[in-house]
Amino acid sequence: MAHTIVIFGASGDLTSRKLVPALYSLFKKNRLPEQTRIVGVSRSQFEHQEWRDALRESVAQFAKELFDNETWEVFSQQVFYQAGDIKDLEDFKALGNFLDEIEEGGSEGRVYYLSTMPQLYDPAIQQLGAAGLADDSDGFRRVIIEKPFGTDLASAQALNKSIHGVFREDQIYRIDHYLGKETVQNIFALRFANSIFEPLWNHHYVDHVQITVAEEVVIGHRAGYYERSGILRDMFQNHLLQLMMITAMEPPARYDSAMVRDEKVKVLHSVRKMTGGDFASNTMRGQYEGYLQEKDVPAGSQTATYAALKLYCDNWRWKNVPFYLRSGKGMSCRTTQIVIQFKQVPHILFGEKTREPLGNRLVIQVQPAEGIQLHFETKVADSEMKTRTSTLDFDFNAATGGSMPDAYQRLLLDSMLGDASLFARSDEVELAWGIIDPIMAAWNSPAAPTLYPYPTQLWGPTESTDWMAKQGREWFDVCPVLSK
Amino acid sequence: MAHTIVIFGASGDLTSRKLVPALYSLFKKNRLPEQTRIVGVSRSQFEHQEWRDALRESVAQFAKELFDNETWEVFSQQVFYQAGDIKDLEDFKALGNFLDEIEEGGSEGRVYYLSTMPQLYDPAIQQLGAAGLADDSDGFRRVIIEKPFGTDLASAQALNKSIHGVFREDQIYRIDHYLGKETVQNIFALRFANSIFEPLWNHHYVDHVQITVAEEVVIGHRAGYYERSGILRDMFQNHLLQLMMITAMEPPARYDSAMVRDEKVKVLHSVRKMTGGDFASNTMRGQYEGYLQEKDVPAGSQTATYAALKLYCDNWRWKNVPFYLRSGKGMSCRTTQIVIQFKQVPHILFGEKTREPLGNRLVIQVQPAEGIQLHFETKVADSEMKTRTSTLDFDFNAATGGSMPDAYQRLLLDSMLGDASLFARSDEVELAWGIIDPIMAAWNSPAAPTLYPYPTQLWGPTESTDWMAKQGREWFDVCPVLSK
Repeated sequence: MAHTIVIFGASGDLTSRKLVPALYSLFKKNRLPEQTRIVGVSRSQFEHQEWRDALRESVAQFAKELFDNETWEVFSQQVFYQAGDIKDLEDFKALGNFLDEIEEGGSEGRVYYLSTMPQLYDPAIQQLGAAGLADDSDGFRRVIIEKPFGTDLASAQALNKSIHGVFREDQIYRIDHYLGKETVQNIFALRFANSIFEPLWNHHYVDHVQITVAEEVVIGHRAGYYERSGILRDMFQNHLLQLMMITAMEPPARYDSAMVRDEKVKVLHSVRKMTGGDFASNTMRGQYEGYLQEKDVPAGSQTATYAALKLYCDNWRWKNVPFYLRSGKGMSCRTTQIVIQFKQVPHILFGEKTREPLGNRLVIQVQPAEGIQLHFETKVADSEMKTRTSTLDFDFNAATGGSMPDAYQRLLLDSMLGDASLFARSDEVELAWGIIDPIMAAWNSPAAPTLYPYPTQLWGPTESTDWMAKQGREWFDVCPVLSK
Repeated sequence: MAHTIVIFGASGDLTSRKLVPALYSLFKKNRLPEQTRIVGVSRSQFEHQEWRDALRESVAQFAKELFDNETWEVFSQQVFYQAGDIKDLEDFKALGNFLDEIEEGGSEGRVYYLSTMPQLYDPAIQQLGAAGLADDSDGFRRVIIEKPFGTDLASAQALNKSIHGVFREDQIYRIDHYLGKETVQNIFALRFANSIFEPLWNHHYVDHVQITVAEEVVIGHRAGYYERSGILRDMFQNHLLQLMMITAMEPPARYDSAMVRDEKVKVLHSVRKMTGGDFASNTMRGQYEGYLQEKDVPAGSQTATYAALKLYCDNWRWKNVPFYLRSGKGMSCRTTQIVIQFKQVPHILFGEKTREPLGNRLVIQVQPAEGIQLHFETKVADSEMKTRTSTLDFDFNAATGGSMPDAYQRLLLDSMLGDASLFARSDEVELAWGIIDPIMAAWNSPAAPTLYPYPTQLWGPTESTDWMAKQGREWFDVCPVLSK
């Protein structure tokens, strides 16, 4: 029985750089379900073989050592191309006929991957419905939707409502590729396959949590998109809140999609609402120097390219433990990392003999470094009882021989197997917007907090550093050491 | 004002290989108190310069990169030799005169180091008293006593009583060189300068503790000593119980000698008394194959060269957490290590998808490796949610550039500075014998547990492995990887 993946937006970069290389890699590793067909859809006209040839180089480049000619020849015979315009219902009907044709012998099911411009998500879904392609009486029908899912709470709600007219929630896979990263999934293992972290993972022992998604790149020619998005929509509503949910969630009874997502959603429900002066005291925003000179940026743009939020989870575990979320363009380096900063020891018994311990720190490197560091105090050798900070280090990538799979492999496979654990549910997406919307509104109001300029190649506005210092804390401004 | 260290047993190996190299190293590092004189005493006749010359080569060898000729020339001018017989009071009076002579300008105080045969400790102390050399009205007078301190509780009590006729307890420094090791002192830092270990350091989270002192060497020509001692006297009463005390003790209010030792003593007080069948069920003893063929071993000797004890601390923190102490000759490798084995996670939420986690393990390498490893579960990359055990690794020796000072440096300096934190107090020594004595008695009784033969180069009797397995546990039989 055939499995089919239909990619809308087949001519885009994501398809050639991520999706098809991921599918090829799964095939090479014998993970793809039997008789998996891949059908690319976009407006351009291609022969099947023409598209295969176009993909070949890109797959060879991105599948790396997994690529070989023989496997490609076998795999690519199941790669097809069907021209089609999302606006044209006839094209969907033709697509349906083509799918029936290549699924000779019956179909287990189909996954529709929407890798199009966001404004086409809803039209594509409506057409799938109108053409009868969402009907799952003959096999599963699932739809994968790329981010961004809406641009605010209202648009996300509208989109959910519209999609739900065609697909049930259990057919919908909202992708955030961060969740496909091994290092993110390893947080589940770290927390729930170890007995020593969970007892410390609460307000008794944790002073605060820092989640940083730093990018070294600046906007370049993408101001058209960025002016509409800004850092909050681009990074916080999805990646940063996802990482926060996984860091903060309670252990589910079982690792399955409903239970995992129930626990994640509970975290968002617990986030303390900001009101009044909170926006000024608990958010920081910045814009790198030079942003206004980038192409297509309107004069005097107030778009933030840096943000730091201080969020609280008002629940039993995390009461009054700040979660600092920050992200910026033009930062010192590219790094995504989660820092669990533990409290100081309750009592320093070494007296004058040592410096004040800094408190322990667990650093989870998500990308591009992939690993864990535990910072702890050791005695300085040949001293009376001085201590210094040392590091217990684990390099995830080195431990796997440098062969960490791309996030899309896992997510594509899960979507075919019907495991939605690592995809965002409708309530999750809406709750996330519900946290971000009021901050965006405050930043667009006359009472907006200052937009601090900051030089690139550093760690954002000095005011953000000062803001932490006033709270007796400091950002973990450390660029990761990459494994060889 | 002069400081003087008088070493009795000056012609012994300890003096030339450890004590004088340690004093030289302290001098080289400018740690020795000003005007420190070193006086060696033994029966042989030497000129001062003759003794200095005899020490030179050994100091050069053991002080390693710290050695240089110029420093040695300056240092060795303060090294003196005085012949004397511990049995002869006149020799002690002559020693007193000589010390007065070289302490021109007055003396801050004197440390007498008893590096003699154990049976001479008490005679030496009595002579010091009789010759007026214990009188501290003109400056401190301290005595360092090497192990073994007694051979059982009665002899230790008698020795304490006799010494206390001459020296007050605060003048007495009973040495166990394990306590001078940086890696042992680092346990204090690990536990009390970090906030994340202490919350886990109790019966809620710890399944059991293993303390191993393994020696690869066999008895060789030392059976004369060993037949009287056996493994319990040789290793358990001192090193193993010391490591157990430091691992199990409560945090003292301050790191000072009275408070630290009060807490250590409390651990020994809490050790559950063995009675009746306990000796059979909670102790294991073995003798390596070939022991009976060693020189001077009487036929049919029942001397144990391997022992494992299961002790409990009946207190709030450690209730029902076994402390397994083991030591053996002819083991797989030389290693001293403490393993904190944490309990399993309470619930495995990954179901069929993963193997059963082993539980976390903290390994503290004391010697010859010097470091810490934390064993924890990570996700197997490119798997659904399988986990495997990974290691967070810290190499203490590498972190200090491979220049860990010898234990005697610290202990000699502390004795001169009057800090007895790392020395055993009279009650500590007696309580330790009080734990070991009943086991020795049981092993010498008709109801003694089987003495299992075991092959050398492995980890002791297989019965010991089985004994652990029956308790659902396993020895951490891992030879450490030594840093370069």
